[in-house]
Amino acid sequence: MRLRVDLLPHGNYPDVVVIVDVLRATTTAVAYLERGADALLLTATPEVALALRPEGESTPYLLGGERGGLPIPGFDFGNSPVEAAGQNFTGKTVVMNTTNGTGAAHTAAHSGKHVFLAALTNAHAAARRARAAATEEIAIVCAGTDNHVGLEDVYAAGVLAEYLLAMGEFSVDDGARIALTVRRNGGNPLEALGSSGHGAHLTRLGLSEDVRYAAGLSTSTIVPTLTRDDSTPDQTLKFTAG
Amino acid sequence: MRLRVDLLPHGNYPDVVVIVDVLRATTTAVAYLERGADALLLTATPEVALALRPEGESTPYLLGGERGGLPIPGFDFGNSPVEAAGQNFTGKTVVMNTTNGTGAAHTAAHSGKHVFLAALTNAHAAARRARAAATEEIAIVCAGTDNHVGLEDVYAAGVLAEYLLAMGEFSVDDGARIALTVRRNGGNPLEALGSSGHGAHLTRLGLSEDVRYAAGLSTSTIVPTLTRDDSTPDQTLKFTAG
Repeated sequence: MRLRVDLLPHGNYPDVVVIVDVLRATTTAVAYLERGADALLLTATPEVALALRPEGESTPYLLGGERGGLPIPGFDFGNSPVEAAGQNFTGKTVVMNTTNGTGAAHTAAHSGKHVFLAALTNAHAAARRARAAATEEIAIVCAGTDNHVGLEDVYAAGVLAEYLLAMGEFSVDDGARIALTVRRNGGNPLEALGSSGHGAHLTRLGLSEDVRYAAGLSTSTIVPTLTRDDSTPDQTLKFTAG
Repeated sequence: MRLRVDLLPHGNYPDVVVIVDVLRATTTAVAYLERGADALLLTATPEVALALRPEGESTPYLLGGERGGLPIPGFDFGNSPVEAAGQNFTGKTVVMNTTNGTGAAHTAAHSGKHVFLAALTNAHAAARRARAAATEEIAIVCAGTDNHVGLEDVYAAGVLAEYLLAMGEFSVDDGARIALTVRRNGGNPLEALGSSGHGAHLTRLGLSEDVRYAAGLSTSTIVPTLTRDDSTPDQTLKFTAG
């Protein structure tokens, strides 16, 4: 079995793909499902999200997302896991669009057989699900920030890689070696996230509670899992709790 | 002053760019100049290199390069620093084309003001040259291997970053933080290069002496420096010893 870490999304994925966007898309996705949401619909653009809820019409959708860390006009929620964790989403479907994470999921879904969303908050469960589904390769894909590698995602990829290596034998690539080195020498999760460029950016925006929340290790056992069915609206990816 | 490490080439470079392709393009480039070559012409494709020396014509050019680690048909040399170090290139111009490194140089030259080639073998000199030329940013750009991050390049970027941090104040990005962590925890240069995927590939091809050569730290003070002049053939970048 191969274990591969892409420090940025690229290329084709033959088997299992685990998308990591710790600050904050995948952390928030876990929180929505943890708080009862039926499903998440990830869109590649805000326009696709807004089109799912035409003005004045009643639809079953809530919209959550951000650009540059800030809420998107017309959306119900930002991309805050703390905000999500404080609400009840039972029976709701949340449409998500974010700067990096949702695009990475679309890249992965293009070729991957099994696609999961992982954060630090569900790292152990995500590693177990990935291991159970994989037949040849697990690719952990870091979303990064605006095409730049994000320390927080590489650290989380290292946490996932460490869990996976404890579960069985893998041949690892250079990306996995780098992620493991960062994980083992990058301090505790809060130190790692706090020292990342995007963590500092969020703190400047007054969102340090989100950084703290995202640093919670394996606090959830929910793994957002790509679910391909006919009822999924065009240009969206449906993730349900796995 | 900003210090930025791109773990793969991307984006725009406003000021100084240092290209790193330790296994083996930039290591070999240093060796050619160390052994007396007047200049290096880096091409984006093998075809451009071959067109500089039409069959049967006498030209001042020698051709060096590889694809997947192996020599290119019609070229005089592979991409081996050991081979280069064993020859005398006085008065010669070497046209280089390699799988990753020469493409990264073309990406960098598109926007960068000052472009240098760095390897472990000239790391200290390259850091000093970059520091002297920079006014706002030093971007260390890892060439990687076929769009995948290469551990050997990230390690070397960490070595360069460490030298630079000893020379003055920098704000560092996440890529630089990751490279420094890999440098400080990745063992000595030979261990780091040997454990990389590309180092293992070269060893399987019987080229372990090149890996050993490339692990020599600061054995040269030559820094291949992009030189823009009217005599440079189209679609090539001229580097001379700086």
